[in-house]
Formats: sequence, structure tokens, C-alpha cells
Amino acid sequence: MASEQLRAPGSKPGENMLWGGRFTGLSHCGLDPLMVSYNESIYYDRAFHTQDILGSIAWARANYKAGILTASEFSAIESGLKKVEGEWVAGTFKIIPGVDEDIHTANERRLGEIIGKEVGGKLHTGRSRNEQVATDMRLWLRDELRKIEVFLVDFLKVTAARAEQEIDLIMPGYTHLQRAQPIRWSHWMLSYGMAFASDLERLREVIARVNLSPLGAGALAGNCFGVNREAMAKELGFEGLLWNSMAAVSSRDFVLETMQWGTMLMTHLSRWSEDLIIYGTGEFSFVRLADAYSTGSSLMPQKKNSDSLELLRGKTGRAFGQMAGLTMTIKGLPSTYNKDLQESVEPMLDHVKTVSDSIRIATGVLSTLAVNPEKMRASLDPFMLATDLADYLVRKGVPFRETHHISGQCVAFSEKSKIPMDQMKLTDFQAIDSRFSQDILDCFSYETSVEFHSAAGGTAKKSVEDQIKVMKSILE
Amino acid sequence: MASEQLRAPGSKPGENMLWGGRFTGLSHCGLDPLMVSYNESIYYDRAFHTQDILGSIAWARANYKAGILTASEFSAIESGLKKVEGEWVAGTFKIIPGVDEDIHTANERRLGEIIGKEVGGKLHTGRSRNEQVATDMRLWLRDELRKIEVFLVDFLKVTAARAEQEIDLIMPGYTHLQRAQPIRWSHWMLSYGMAFASDLERLREVIARVNLSPLGAGALAGNCFGVNREAMAKELGFEGLLWNSMAAVSSRDFVLETMQWGTMLMTHLSRWSEDLIIYGTGEFSFVRLADAYSTGSSLMPQKKNSDSLELLRGKTGRAFGQMAGLTMTIKGLPSTYNKDLQESVEPMLDHVKTVSDSIRIATGVLSTLAVNPEKMRASLDPFMLATDLADYLVRKGVPFRETHHISGQCVAFSEKSKIPMDQMKLTDFQAIDSRFSQDILDCFSYETSVEFHSAAGGTAKKSVEDQIKVMKSILE
Amino acid sequence: MASEQLRAPGSKPGENMLWGGRFTGLSHCGLDPLMVSYNESIYYDRAFHTQDILGSIAWARANYKAGILTASEFSAIESGLKKVEGEWVAGTFKIIPGVDEDIHTANERRLGEIIGKEVGGKLHTGRSRNEQVATDMRLWLRDELRKIEVFLVDFLKVTAARAEQEIDLIMPGYTHLQRAQPIRWSHWMLSYGMAFASDLERLREVIARVNLSPLGAGALAGNCFGVNREAMAKELGFEGLLWNSMAAVSSRDFVLETMQWGTMLMTHLSRWSEDLIIYGTGEFSFVRLADAYSTGSSLMPQKKNSDSLELLRGKTGRAFGQMAGLTMTIKGLPSTYNKDLQESVEPMLDHVKTVSDSIRIATGVLSTLAVNPEKMRASLDPFMLATDLADYLVRKGVPFRETHHISGQCVAFSEKSKIPMDQMKLTDFQAIDSRFSQDILDCFSYETSVEFHSAAGGTAKKSVEDQIKVMKSILE
Amino acid sequence: MASEQLRAPGSKPGENMLWGGRFTGLSHCGLDPLMVSYNESIYYDRAFHTQDILGSIAWARANYKAGILTASEFSAIESGLKKVEGEWVAGTFKIIPGVDEDIHTANERRLGEIIGKEVGGKLHTGRSRNEQVATDMRLWLRDELRKIEVFLVDFLKVTAARAEQEIDLIMPGYTHLQRAQPIRWSHWMLSYGMAFASDLERLREVIARVNLSPLGAGALAGNCFGVNREAMAKELGFEGLLWNSMAAVSSRDFVLETMQWGTMLMTHLSRWSEDLIIYGTGEFSFVRLADAYSTGSSLMPQKKNSDSLELLRGKTGRAFGQMAGLTMTIKGLPSTYNKDLQESVEPMLDHVKTVSDSIRIATGVLSTLAVNPEKMRASLDPFMLATDLADYLVRKGVPFRETHHISGQCVAFSEKSKIPMDQMKLTDFQAIDSRFSQDILDCFSYETSVEFHSAAGGTAKKSVEDQIKVMKSILE
Repeated sequence: MASEQLRAPGSKPGENMLWGGRFTGLSHCGLDPLMVSYNESIYYDRAFHTQDILGSIAWARANYKAGILTASEFSAIESGLKKVEGEWVAGTFKIIPGVDEDIHTANERRLGEIIGKEVGGKLHTGRSRNEQVATDMRLWLRDELRKIEVFLVDFLKVTAARAEQEIDLIMPGYTHLQRAQPIRWSHWMLSYGMAFASDLERLREVIARVNLSPLGAGALAGNCFGVNREAMAKELGFEGLLWNSMAAVSSRDFVLETMQWGTMLMTHLSRWSEDLIIYGTGEFSFVRLADAYSTGSSLMPQKKNSDSLELLRGKTGRAFGQMAGLTMTIKGLPSTYNKDLQESVEPMLDHVKTVSDSIRIATGVLSTLAVNPEKMRASLDPFMLATDLADYLVRKGVPFRETHHISGQCVAFSEKSKIPMDQMKLTDFQAIDSRFSQDILDCFSYETSVEFHSAAGGTAKKSVEDQIKVMKSILE
Repeated sequence: MASEQLRAPGSKPGENMLWGGRFTGLSHCGLDPLMVSYNESIYYDRAFHTQDILGSIAWARANYKAGILTASEFSAIESGLKKVEGEWVAGTFKIIPGVDEDIHTANERRLGEIIGKEVGGKLHTGRSRNEQVATDMRLWLRDELRKIEVFLVDFLKVTAARAEQEIDLIMPGYTHLQRAQPIRWSHWMLSYGMAFASDLERLREVIARVNLSPLGAGALAGNCFGVNREAMAKELGFEGLLWNSMAAVSSRDFVLETMQWGTMLMTHLSRWSEDLIIYGTGEFSFVRLADAYSTGSSLMPQKKNSDSLELLRGKTGRAFGQMAGLTMTIKGLPSTYNKDLQESVEPMLDHVKTVSDSIRIATGVLSTLAVNPEKMRASLDPFMLATDLADYLVRKGVPFRETHHISGQCVAFSEKSKIPMDQMKLTDFQAIDSRFSQDILDCFSYETSVEFHSAAGGTAKKSVEDQIKVMKSILE
Repeated sequence: MASEQLRAPGSKPGENMLWGGRFTGLSHCGLDPLMVSYNESIYYDRAFHTQDILGSIAWARANYKAGILTASEFSAIESGLKKVEGEWVAGTFKIIPGVDEDIHTANERRLGEIIGKEVGGKLHTGRSRNEQVATDMRLWLRDELRKIEVFLVDFLKVTAARAEQEIDLIMPGYTHLQRAQPIRWSHWMLSYGMAFASDLERLREVIARVNLSPLGAGALAGNCFGVNREAMAKELGFEGLLWNSMAAVSSRDFVLETMQWGTMLMTHLSRWSEDLIIYGTGEFSFVRLADAYSTGSSLMPQKKNSDSLELLRGKTGRAFGQMAGLTMTIKGLPSTYNKDLQESVEPMLDHVKTVSDSIRIATGVLSTLAVNPEKMRASLDPFMLATDLADYLVRKGVPFRETHHISGQCVAFSEKSKIPMDQMKLTDFQAIDSRFSQDILDCFSYETSVEFHSAAGGTAKKSVEDQIKVMKSILE
Repeated sequence: MASEQLRAPGSKPGENMLWGGRFTGLSHCGLDPLMVSYNESIYYDRAFHTQDILGSIAWARANYKAGILTASEFSAIESGLKKVEGEWVAGTFKIIPGVDEDIHTANERRLGEIIGKEVGGKLHTGRSRNEQVATDMRLWLRDELRKIEVFLVDFLKVTAARAEQEIDLIMPGYTHLQRAQPIRWSHWMLSYGMAFASDLERLREVIARVNLSPLGAGALAGNCFGVNREAMAKELGFEGLLWNSMAAVSSRDFVLETMQWGTMLMTHLSRWSEDLIIYGTGEFSFVRLADAYSTGSSLMPQKKNSDSLELLRGKTGRAFGQMAGLTMTIKGLPSTYNKDLQESVEPMLDHVKTVSDSIRIATGVLSTLAVNPEKMRASLDPFMLATDLADYLVRKGVPFRETHHISGQCVAFSEKSKIPMDQMKLTDFQAIDSRFSQDILDCFSYETSVEFHSAAGGTAKKSVEDQIKVMKSILE
């Protein structure tokens, strides 16, 4: 089946634009400048210049070992590529608009200018941009995720340090944003610390899947010059190979999984920020952001706004949107490379920056946050000890469902009589249930309540200290 | 309740960084450069420089009419602002890093330098950046959507023109991507044309909701100098007012609705592209993209890839992702302005560009697309007339469910005997059902089949021509 | 091209299951029960039984008018269909598992049993399930959206009634969740009222696009028996036709647009809920939910949780997820009907129920919400009048940027001296700026501040009353 | 601060419904039946009945060991709970509408009826529904994911078996859906096999994070009766503890991560389906679905539609939508339990079912799929060997960029002369470039081309066999 059947009469662009001549940007030479810019990626994929150069050197070396290049050809290519990289680093690389459509084309064009087309033209032997872009993206992403790992460890260290130091501060714990039971401020910090620690563990799993080599996959069918894929992978620091050439060029799973991971982490940051925004209202006043992480109002002189926390919360949507968008882009694509996949690059760049910056901003916020223990304590409410009241009777053998009811009656008495629960007399209690005795009055201490919760994972001091140990153990 | 209670001991940044000194970028002067860049918007919201200037002139005029500014103050401000705009247009405006955090701040800073701070400092009277950014965004978006409206009308005109001209081409119509019934190529084009026409109608509704004025809403409570909001709105071309000041600064619905609209349109483009990509495979070969909208392979010399169509399909994910992300950003926010809303700006800019470019690329693609009528016809299959066979018997009074069954028997006979259905003899038919008579053989024409579908909206010539009329009627 | 080429040797299921015999549920008769349930829709699309019956009656009538059915055949079909509907209403319709795969099949099967297959088998003449399901869904959705319109009007009436009655309550207005300026409680309610009013206007536009008829589109190519589509549309209450038969069966835009609309409305409800949840904390205590819309804790007797509001906020994710999912399902589909589109039905049913219930729950919550004016007032803070202080000087001719600074100095003085701003003496003010005179002390009234914001859309009484009028005007 | 301040005058529901009496479903006794159904979860969380019972037995045992229950009390509770479970299994458990709002309440209510409230009422001691629901969900999900693991292994086994058996079939490999290079059919199957193998590895990591115990976390602060959390976790088969009680009740990360995983897997299935749908068109005809996994048309007797594949593709949207929705629900929530989290249950149930069924359907499809090797071969095109032509010259020392160009000239010659490339004579080749010699004619074999791609991961036989080994190694 010959493809000339494809060519219908009059299909030559620039001649038969019966329907759209005046609507398109198509010039007489058959170029649509809008299509050029719609298609080109150089203005963002130049972020991979280093990876592209390193990948090309590894490629040239493998072709040299495979007998496709001579030693001197390889040497020329290697030193030429290093010069190209030097230009990128020095900021002197000149992108030629409309010619350098992507980083691969640009680098190879420049290499040819430096070492001559005769040898430069041999670099691309047996190679496809399909494998090249996948290689560049994986190398870049691996390095960035390793940086993020460090930032995340820093954040957890700050969390652990504050949790150790401020372990004696007690605040209201909320469920449904209603005061529930007294907890340690450190317990609150660690509740998020544990979520971020889980993010850290998962990040390490993600990196392992990102760091696999597609190099040698060709356009889709593999390499036919016998290059040693393992050697190339090793040179580039990959931990293993992608084992099917079609899958290798087809997949953007490594980007998607990173974004799924990043979205999860951002939801944690969004909840952490939400709590701190609420704790920082005039009505709560538990915490106060450092000036470095807040701003004023152009209209209202007294205002101090939690910009950093609001941006953390807001950027959760941004990070999620990139993940959602890429998932849609990938859904239902035919196999191997389709140009749709180019739409994975910009979202990846932005997602990684967003997550990376956000972790560091959160670290800065937590490092400099002022807390107000008096306001925390003022917000504790005797009603929060109602559960302890119920537990007191449990220890005397009363079934919990009954104690829950009795405790509710005490709450009702306090509300009606306007006598705060911690000022109720023994006779008041006994009027409700005769099993109350003198020691009930010891219940009404927030410290006692907190220390009662001493099972693993609870808010008692020892339990909190154990949590800190657990968390530190994964930071190594 | 005085806010000094908020100030905990040791809250001064730069002094009490017990936990994070070495983890943050915080300098001795209390600045975190990362926070500066995390927070600033000037590098993208400068897109609104014209709108910001026009809004400020309208604002100054209203304050002049309200007696807050003198005639000469207003005059100085107006001419100063025009000079600032001149600098933006000429590309000479110098953004001061770390100072000009957003376009509003930048413009006002520059105005003060030009006309002096004494008068320049009066511009912001009674105004908040909250209302200012909402005003800028709405003005910008309204203008962009009006351009998009024109692009969409162009696209529909190309569709209508081709549909008129190529009305005689017949191709297979598919359901489930299986050959179903013969249709006109124009009918296929119009099936998308109708979807885009619906997008056009809806766009006009969206614009009406975008084009409402928040100016005069203040930070949240309204304006207290009696500015005439209607007059400002009129000056800026708004069609009406937003009627509650809190809602006016709180809402990014106009962005979200635009993105919902854009996402819908992109799903239409994604389906249109999917069809054309499949029709352009070697196996189908119905259409061939102009060179201007396709590219070659770096490895395979014979390849011609549908880059434009694949990008259209892929960018559907991008457009959707922005909408999804913004929806999440907005979800659950407290009322009025929160900094999270800043995250609506970049997605809006990119979404609008994506949609706008995509419509124009599609117009270019359709304007220059070559069709191959022979391949369309070669792909028609006598089995596609099986329904017409059933309908033939219906006209003879046989219940449809029975004719469906009989027609199925003819299909089976043809498959088993390897006699194509259109070469079956009358006796073959009559062996299956005696009610077949000579005229059955007339059924086997794709043209006849197509013309049979003559009810409104069908693929018969007259019905297709009616569709073109309907579509054109909304382009005016 | 004959399709027997499709049949490869050994393709008969049940015989050549070399690879999967033991992994699949495929029985010897070639059925996989999992596939039956994966494919069937009857257990949810029976929701459309009424619409399916009405559509079939209209269809039969049109075929009768077109000469395909006799008067007595039509009459038999019509009365038979009414009996079928009677069985649905009475709850006596018996679905035959594995046979009645969808509502269309079920109804037609039952019709045949009631009136005989000879006549019953004529109903489906020239009709496809593709057009049928689109018709059923549009009819159902139109009716549900009209109910929702009524619920939304009710909600707005409650909002307007409370806004009128409680116009004198003053509370802190927040930006960034920080106290900003005093506002009327009614102004807060109306800020959401305006968003919901916009939802109402848009809903009416959505309904108009939903309420268009696909009936007569056939499988994809149109109808070939000359049915009168306009007459059918009129009988079913449609406002117009879908003008291209392929588009008519291909499109689920009407579902998607509904879900986009519903998602927008839910984001409004989520923000409204967020505010009320925060205002209902122990620390704010501005509002208290009626017992009917809150619940207790199984462990903590004193708790009262805002379940209704939290569910409203949480279900925003649910409603969004359905929209996001359907968008992805539709993205990149080839044209006309693909089975993927079946995935629009369950999300539509659930989305509409979620939105409908949520509006009614919100109406119940607002109708029964207790407010605590004393706590609102206690949360007002003299610092909130700092802007009024600045405005005071503006009226004396001081440039705003300068007054903003002076006002900031007053805030600082108050913080440092611990003298609340409203207790500062004239001499204190004059020490900061000599332009302050006796009348500055009048500034410090929250009522005065509120009434100052008298431009259109502001929080002054007259402006709020105007808003109520505007809102009521669209409820008719 | 006492909470009686919360009670505003007139807040009693049923009395002061000034604004909404007629709009709400609120009855005189203060109940809104819509709120009851909006709030209750029993009709779906009964799916956890077994887990809830097992969790309660473990809980009772721990309380017995902690001295809160006597041996006989524990014994009564244990046997009572087993009876309740027996009723669920037998289908005789009667849910009491409006009372049994969730599975926990229902089971405890029934336990009390069976063993008496005195002892039954002791079960809930120190326990919260917050930890209970998290425990139930994790147990249920762990078990379901382990089933899915088995289904996925089955699917991979079928893939491996077919890949081994059909390794000699050659088909066109596509990029951009354009014929690119010849590949083995097994190579195509394995390209997806590798993606699903990666899903399998990741699934095992997800299960490890799901299978951690929240039991003993209390409402938020932990347990205060010294229960042994490790012992309970061990009894229930958990692999470890959640180490912070607030995080334990707050987190739905285990659901979200499962859904992220499921969404990724579904995108793989969607691409796999897309390929097979296209390969099953009349134009391609490479494969034919077994009847068990396809359906006919109600209108067109000849149609055979790929319903199973289209549903697989369409349900990708559904699975994604649930993940997207839950992410939004979680975003920005305050810490610990909020009722919003209830919205994680139904999506989880449906998501898991969707993914589980989809893997099994895909297994059935692949197990019974007929392939048509003749059509695969007929679709191969000499142009697909153009790369091999270029590679031929590379082996003669010509730089690749030059060979790419020469090969392109051969393509052009073939197109222009209408001589298929594999029928070009040596003189034709030499007229283009003199370096072509006799052996060039050996290039034109698809088998040769395939075998050339022999580097790791390529489409040569040996490379494909290695892939099968790699894949099998992770199935153990």
C-alpha cells in the first residue's frame, strides 16, 4: 500500500486554501507562525540543557563502544557538547527562533556548527527524539526530587525540634472545628509531621520509579546498532532499565506519579495552613506569623494577612490542576509517542517548582511562628473534660453508654445553672449520680486529661516523645 | 479585645528563629527572598497594565466628581497615568524587583515619580487592591473573549464554506468506530459545527457575566466617598454593576465560568481532532494534513505526523487542568478576598491563550486539509446498507423487529457465502424471505441511502443545506 | 471489503480460550456474567421510565402520522405503553436479569408481552437507542432542573427575608480571615445571595440548552421515514431541535454543562458553609446551628457538630468529581455514540440529587440558624476603624497614602501604649498629626463606619436595601 | 468561657423558623427527614459489617486485657457480635431507618438487644466512631486490594502467555498513529504488560500504607484506658500502627493514594483499549473481540461494537472523577475528623469495584481476542523500512543526518514514480546515492528489520523473550 494514495489533488498548502485563506496565518511559503509557536517547546524545555548534553555524551560513548563512531569522532562530539553546555551555563547560547524547535534540535544544531556537520551529524545515529526527551525529563526530575527530599527532611527536623521544645504547651484539640479535648501543641504539630513523614517515604518510592532509563528505546522499536543500554544507564546514574522500548517512549507515568505525590503533599500543606490561618484569627489568636511571611493591606493600616499560608493553600489547587490535566491528556491516547505528551513538560516544571517552594515556605513559616500559650489556655473550656467525667465513672464500673449519658446531664446542668463545670460542687455531681465521690474533682485538670491519653500515639508526654523518635528514625 | 494580645514574647522575626535559622532563606533584615518571589505577581499581572491604567483614570475621575480631587489634581493624575502606560507600550517601564510586587503597586509607584507623591498619593483614596485586581481581570478577560468570539465565528465560516462546497462527498459514518451508515462528509463537518455554534452562543452569555463592574467595592465594605459606580462602569465599558461589595471582591466566578466554557470547547476540539487523526492514518487515508500543520520524524524519513491535531487534543487536558485547579482553589475559601485567589491569574492567562490559539490552529487545519474521496468511498461497505434492507421490508409492512432479524440473516448469508451483499441475487434474498421483490436491488446505493435520511437534521442533501442555514444564522 | 476477513481462525469464544480459560468468568455458552453486569444500565437508567414511555408514545404517533403505523396499531402501542408505565408507578414492573439490559429494552420487551410482538415490534421502526437515551436523559434532566430552580428561588427568598429583618445587626467583616471593617450581617448574607442569584440566572440558560430534542436522529444519519421532528419535540415539551443527527447522538454537553453549573453552585455553598462553620466555633460563637442540622459525638457528651455544613462543603468535592470524571470520559472520543457515554448516566443522577438536596439543606440551615448579636459585637475591634481614621484626614485634604501612614502610627501607638484606639485622647492623636481635631472622636462608632459605605453595593443600610430589591427582581 | 453564650434567644428549632418554615422539611418535632438521609451512611457503609464486627471484638479483647471488661463480659460481647455478623451474612439483619445512621451504631444497637444494654453498653468505652470508621475502611480496603493484586497477576499471566505463543506475528508499530516501524505483536502486548507490572509493584507499596492501624486513637487525643494498640493491630492483621492519634482519625490518605493508583492503572487500560478499538475497526481489522465482550446494534443488523473496550475507556473518567472529587473534599479541611470525610466512603467503594471489575474484563477480553495476522501483514508498508535504509548507509560510514536525507529521497522517488520501495532496483538506489550496493535489497524484509532491533528492550525475538522473563519475575 503506497502512501501516494494519501495525496489528494490540490492538497498542497499555500495553493488550495479555498476555505480559509483569510482566516489563517499561513504565508505564501506555507508557514503558519502561530503553528510554529504552538508546536515549539524550546522556550521551556531548555530547562533540560544539562541533561540533554549528558545524555548525548552517554549516547555517543555507547555508539563509540558499539563501533558506530571512531574514538576521535567520539572525542570531538564529547568536547563539542561540553562547549555547548558551557554556552548554556554562561548564558551565551543563542536560540534561533523558528529553527531550534526543542532543546534536542538546538543542541545538535549548535554542535554541528562547532565541530562540523560531518561528525556532528553522526550523533543522532539510531536515536530518536522520543527516547531523548524521556531521558532528559527523567534525569531532570530525579535530581529535582532529590532536592525536594532534602527540603522535606528539613521541614520535618523543624517540626521535631519544636515538638520537643514546646511539649508542655496545651491547647484545645478540635473535631469538626469544635473544641473537643485538650491536647499538646506538639501533638498537633506531629499530626502533620506524620503525614509529611509518610510523604517522605513515598517520595523515595517515586524516585526509584522515575530513575529508570529509556535510552536505547529508539523511536519505538528499540535500537539496531547494539548499544549497551546498561552502560549508558550506569553512566547517567539510572538505577535500572525500562524493559520495553514502546513503553519507554510512551509513558509519562513518572511525571504523573510525581504529580500525584505532590498533590497529596499539597493537601497536607493545605490543611496545615487552614489550621494555622484559623489559629491566627483575632478570635483564636493562638499563633502569629512572622512579618516575613505576612503582608499588610493597601487600604487598612491595622491589617496583617497570612499571605504565605493562603498561598500554600491556594497553590494546592494549582498543583492538583496540573495533575488532573495531565491525567486527562494521557487518557485514551494510542500507544507510543503522540505529540499530546509534549503537554507533560510545562506542567511538570511548574508542579515541581510549586511543591519545592511550598515546602520551603512552610519551613520558614514554622521556624518563625510565634505562639501564644495564654490564648491557647484561655480557649480551653471545662466542657472539654466531659469525656474524662464519663471515663471516671467507667473506671467505677458503669457502662460507657450510661456514663456518656450521665456526663451529658452534667453538661446540661452546667449550661442551665450557668455554673461552669469545673466549679460544680460534689453535691451537684451526686445529685446527678450517686456514684460520684470526692476524687471527681481531680478530673478537672487539662494536664491530667492530657496525661490520661497515654496509649501509643496519644497526647500524653511519653506518647508524644515516642512519636518524635519514630519520626526522626525515618529522617536519616 | 485589643490585638496586642496577639504578640507573643519573642515573635520578632530574625531574632527568635530557634527552630529554623539554618533551614530558611530569612536574612538578618527579616526578609525571605523566596517569600518575595512566592508572593509577587508583577511578572504575570503586568499583562493588565492597560486595564489598570484605564481603571485608575476612571477612579480618579470619579473621585474628582465626588469632590475628593480637584480638577487640576485629576488632570495631573490622568496625564501621569497616560505617561506610565506609554512606558509599558514602549517597553521602557522598569519593574523594580522586590518593590513592585504587583501591577497596581508598580503603576502607582511610577505615577508618584512622574507627578510627585503629593498628588500621586491621592489616587488610591478609598480604593483597595481587592477591587482593583478584580476590575483589571474583568476588563482584560472581556476584551480577550471578544477576540475569541471573532476567531470562533471564523472557524464556523470555514466549516460552513466547506460543508457547502463538498456536500456531494460520501463517507462511512461510524458509531463505536465501526462502520455504521453512509453519510455526507459535510454532515460530519456540521456535526462539530453545531457543537461549536453552541459554544458561540454560550460564550456570549459568559461575556455578559464577565463584563460587570466591581469598581467601588473597596476592600470589602464598599466605598465611603460617594463615588458614582455607574459612571465608572460606563466609562470602562461594563454592562452593569456587581451589586454587593463583598461578593465583588470575593468572586472569581467569572474566571471559573470562562474556564468551564473553554474546557467544553476544548473537549469538542479534542473529539474533532481524534476523528481527523484516525481518518489520517494509513489505514483510513480519508484526509491529509497540510505540511504547515504536521511535522516529520527525526529518525524515520517517511513519517508525517499530525502534530497540530495531537496538540489540540493534548491541550484539552491543559485547559481542563486549569479549570479543575481553580475550582479546588476556590472550594471552601472563607468569604471576600483571600490571597489564594491570586492563583486565579496565571491559569486564566494561560487558559485564554490556549483556547484562543487552539481555535485558530483548528481553523488553519480545516482550511488546508486535503480530502481523499476515493478512499472514503473505498471504505464504504455493503453491510452498511443492512439497515436500508430492513427499512425496505418495513415499507412493505413487516414489523421492524422482524425486518432487523431478516436483515441480519442476509448479513450472515453474505459472510458465510462470501458473496458481498450488493452482489446477492434476488433469489438469494427470496430464499431468506419471500417478501423481497425486484426493487430490493435498488437499495444498494450509498447515495440512495443517504438521501433517504431526509428528516430534519439528517444526512440528505436538503437536510444538510438546512443545517448550514441554521448555523449561519447565529454567526451574524 | 467484506467483514469475513475479520474472522481469524479460532476466534470463536468458548473454544479457543488458550490464554485465559481459568481467569475469566466465561462459561461454556460464551457468556461472561461479569460482562453482563459491567455492561447493563437497567439498575440505574430505570430512573427514566416515564420519559422513555412518553418518548415512545411521541415516536409512535409520529410514525403513525408518517404512515408507518396504522391508527389502530398506534392506539394499541399507546395504551400498551401506558400500561407499562402503570407497572413502573405501581412498582410491579419485573426486570428480567440478563435480558432487560437497559430501560429501552425492558419497556419494549414488556410492551411486546402486553400487546403482542407483531404490533409491538413496529415501535422501534427507524429508531435507535442512541437517540432514545439522549431523549430520555434530556427530558429527565429538564424536569429536575426546573425543580432545582424552585428550590433555589426558595433559598434566595429565605436569604432576602432574613436580610430585611436582621439589617441592623453589625458584625466584623473579614478579609484574609482577619478582622477588616464592620459590616451588616445582612450584607454578609447578601454577598452569597448575589452569587446564588447569578447561579439562578445561569441555570435558566442551561435549561434552555438541555431542552432541545434529539428525537429523530436515528443511530447517527437521521430518520428515513419522514417523521415530523418538530411535532415530536412539541409533544414532549422541547423548546427546539438539535439540528444535526450525528451531533444529537454524540453529545453529552447538556450533562456536562449542568455539572459545570452544579459545581459552581456547590463552590458557593462550600464557601458559605466554611464561613458558618468558623462563625460557629466556640471562639467566634456568632451563630448556632439548629439541632436538626447538627449532631453529637459518640464519645464526647458536650459536642455539637456542624454536620450539615460539613457535608455541604464535602459534597462539593463529590459534585466536582462527577463533572471532572465526565469531562475526561468525553475527552478525545471519536464522534457519534460510543459506549463510553453510558458513563454519563450515573454521575448525572447523583450530581443532580447532590445539588438538589444541598440547596434544600442550606435553606433549612439558614431558616433555623440562631445568631448571637452580642458575640458579633464583642468581636468588633477599634483597630477596624483605622481606615475611617485615614478617611477622616482625606476629607481634610491629606493625600491617602499619607493618611494611611498616619493611621498606621495611631495603631502602633495604641499597641504600644495598650490604650485601645477608641480610648485615645485628642492630644494623643494630635501628637501624631496636628490636623486631627475634636470631631475625630466621632469616627469611633461602628454604626458610623457602616453608614459611611453608602455607594452602590456598600454596607450602608440604604445600599443593602437596594441589593435586596435587585435580588428579588430576578426571583419572579 | 462557657458555651451557654452560644445559645442565642430563640434558637430552639421548631419554634423560631421565621424565615423558612414553609421551605424546609422540618417537622414539629424538629426533625428534617431530608437531613436524616443527607447525613446517614448506613445504606453504603454496611459494606463494612464484617470489619466492624472484627474491629469491635479486637477492641473488647483489648479492654478486657486492660481490665475494663471482665472475662465474662468480653465473652458475652464476643459471642453477641458473632451473632450480629451471622445476621448480616444470612441477610436477616434489619436496619432501623432513622436510627441506625451508620454501621457502627447499627451493630452496637443490635448487640445491646442480643446481650442486654448493661454489658453491650460497655463495648464503646474509650472508643470513638472516628477511629472505628477509619479501622473499618482500612481493613476492608486492604482485603479488596489483595484481591485486586491477584486479578492483576492473572492479567499479566495471560499477557505473558500470549506474548510467548504469538511471538512470531509481525504488525506495524505506530507513532502518532502513523505507521512507523514493524514490531512484534508480542512487543505491543508487553508494552502494556510493563505498565501493568509497574502498577503491580506500586500496588504492593500502597497496600503497606493502607494496612496500618488507627485503632486506639480515640476521637482525636488517644486512648486513656491503656489499651494495647499493638495487640489489637496484630489481631486484625495490620502491619503496623499509625503513630499519632490526630493523624489517625484525620487522614483519608489511604483512600486517596488507592484512587491515585487506580486512576493510573485505568489510564493504562484506557490506552490499551484505545489501541484495540482502533485495531478492531473495519479499516485496520487486526483483531476481533469475542462475542462475549461486544454487542450488536438495535438498528443496524451488521454492527458489532466494542462495548467492553469502550466501557474500560469510559470508566477511566469515572475512576479519575472519584479521585479528583476526594482530593477536593480533603483540600483545606481543618485537622482531625470533619464530617466532610464521610464523602470518602462511597467513592472508595465504587472506585475499587470499578478498578477490580475492569482488570477482570480486560483479562477476559485479552483471553478471547481473535487476531488476524494477514491483516496485520497487509498493513505493513515498505516505507516503514526507510529507517533501515538509512541505517544501512550508517553501517557504511555515512553520517546519520545525511543518511536520513538520502532515505527521504528514496521515499520521494518511490512516491513520484509510483514504484513501491521494495520494488526499486539497485540502479534506482544508486542513482540517488552511489554508496548503495547489491546487499541493499536484503533490507526490505520486515523480519530482518524486527530482528535488527536487538538491544535490550527492543522488538527482536531474544529481546522480547527477555522482557517476558522480567515480567514473570515480579508475578511470584
